[in-house]
Amino acid sequence: MKKYVNDPEHFVSEMMEGLVLANPDTLRWKKEHNIIYRADAPRDDKVSIIQGSGSGHEPAHIMAVGKGMLDAAVPGNVFAAPPMDYIVECFRLMNTPKGILHLVNNYQGDRMGWEMAREMAEAEDIRTELVVVNDDVAVEDSTYTVGRRGVAGNFFVIKAAGAASEQGAGLDELVRIASKVNDQVRTMGMALTGCTPPAKGEPIFTLADDEVEMGVGIHGEPGRRRDKMKQADAFVEELFEAVSQDIPFEKGDRVGLMINGLGGTPISELYLLYRKAALLCQDRGFEVIQNYVGEYCTSLEMAGFSLTLVRLDDELEQLMKAPAEVPIRVF
Amino acid sequence: MKKYVNDPEHFVSEMMEGLVLANPDTLRWKKEHNIIYRADAPRDDKVSIIQGSGSGHEPAHIMAVGKGMLDAAVPGNVFAAPPMDYIVECFRLMNTPKGILHLVNNYQGDRMGWEMAREMAEAEDIRTELVVVNDDVAVEDSTYTVGRRGVAGNFFVIKAAGAASEQGAGLDELVRIASKVNDQVRTMGMALTGCTPPAKGEPIFTLADDEVEMGVGIHGEPGRRRDKMKQADAFVEELFEAVSQDIPFEKGDRVGLMINGLGGTPISELYLLYRKAALLCQDRGFEVIQNYVGEYCTSLEMAGFSLTLVRLDDELEQLMKAPAEVPIRVF
Repeated sequence: MKKYVNDPEHFVSEMMEGLVLANPDTLRWKKEHNIIYRADAPRDDKVSIIQGSGSGHEPAHIMAVGKGMLDAAVPGNVFAAPPMDYIVECFRLMNTPKGILHLVNNYQGDRMGWEMAREMAEAEDIRTELVVVNDDVAVEDSTYTVGRRGVAGNFFVIKAAGAASEQGAGLDELVRIASKVNDQVRTMGMALTGCTPPAKGEPIFTLADDEVEMGVGIHGEPGRRRDKMKQADAFVEELFEAVSQDIPFEKGDRVGLMINGLGGTPISELYLLYRKAALLCQDRGFEVIQNYVGEYCTSLEMAGFSLTLVRLDDELEQLMKAPAEVPIRVF
Repeated sequence: MKKYVNDPEHFVSEMMEGLVLANPDTLRWKKEHNIIYRADAPRDDKVSIIQGSGSGHEPAHIMAVGKGMLDAAVPGNVFAAPPMDYIVECFRLMNTPKGILHLVNNYQGDRMGWEMAREMAEAEDIRTELVVVNDDVAVEDSTYTVGRRGVAGNFFVIKAAGAASEQGAGLDELVRIASKVNDQVRTMGMALTGCTPPAKGEPIFTLADDEVEMGVGIHGEPGRRRDKMKQADAFVEELFEAVSQDIPFEKGDRVGLMINGLGGTPISELYLLYRKAALLCQDRGFEVIQNYVGEYCTSLEMAGFSLTLVRLDDELEQLMKAPAEVPIRVF
């Protein structure tokens, strides 16, 4: 597997440096603790929202730092949780009188680091709360997870909490909103290929030319089963059924619909997949209020996609439609 | 090569349907002629700007239809020019009293179709002008090209002409601006892998595990040479040298800098590549006014990237910074 890498040990820091060089007015970088943060953060008048998780899922989560989204992100190495002391440093850096909301995708390493970091922060009178995202319906427990995994639904939690924070919500209110979104969002993904972490140098798993992994995790964890290659619409149908039956979503629901590329799937194919998902929403009487087609939570260069549905009410619709500014440009 | 496809014959139309389903308020689709156009186009008070080229380069060019960008796009099949009668129909559909500017990346098939379509349009009293984009410095002639190829620099031509058109510029003025941008923009790309057109079902070329193609075209055309795999910064250096020495760019120049992913390269690697390109600009004394890191002109799922520099003056800087609305969402 050929990748654009210099020294694999510097992969994450060189990516972060590139991001900051591309956004000199809006982003800051505390290199020694892997922290990317907004140039205007922390602000006394708002809760800081941070996320710490492994790298390799870009744009999640360092490219989700911006107005209406995260205040800071503290990634670890590729597919590795950030060290506990990095999280503590991020708490210190983002401390405000209104406190800090820490959003974590449900992986054991991330949760353990947070628990210890929180104790240390409390000793320094820094108020923090945690909301764990666990939107993946594929499996109930997984390689690195007790309980469901957190995957692309994380985006909706960030978006809602980020918007509410800009609007002045306090920490308890943000915990309520983030938890509410997590309760209403469901995702499932699938892979056509594995991916290769730079420092590992070989694929974390391989699939035969006619094989796919249904319900794959974002670190290549096994899903529900290996299956044979099929037509695109068949894959959309299976993910849509799994996701929509889980809450379940019902006729008349207002929804956000996301087709998320896992890193190596071209945008042409993502729109072809979106077509079927949108038609299925029409069939079921789900009203798509917001749609998202692109890359939101990836696994390096893995070819594959995930499908996410989130149920919206008036409160969440307003938050999803609120302005957000992120450091990645379209045009 | 596994891809998300149903019937390969419907790949382009199903992608287009997905795009329109995702943008019901702003886009329209004339399915029988493969035309995506703005819901508010044509407008009597502005020149229409259209582009016709092969598919497989998304977001170019159907996802560049929007306010401040293209009024319509008329793609052919994957890596194939649109049929001449589709272009004529697009001229009819987008006809305005101020005329139509047709932007074409320099490939023989696209240029031939346009020449014939233009004659037919003139017979119907439709005024059209053509600007050909040929920003690729890799080779002087190529598999499908007499003269240099048109590649990712196309984006800057669209952006400037689209902005000027919104500001009321007439057809002659837009030809001047588009030609000026084309004169000031240079690109070169490289590939780590080939790619597989859906209807072909096999890669258009293959590279060994330690091989790369320097100067690759966006349909996999050979570039300057096959080379061995190297560290990422070495590739950036070679592309940067080739591009910056071509006009040449000089110390003190204001520039736009683009790292364009070719479809299968993850955003993490693109920012790692941008880092080196930005540092090289600092070394050379080029002031980066605008930067672009992402996918702008792809080759299906090809792993690879291109580097583009455009020299800006006051006029072009203003046009690059003008608002643009495209149908692909970031957050």
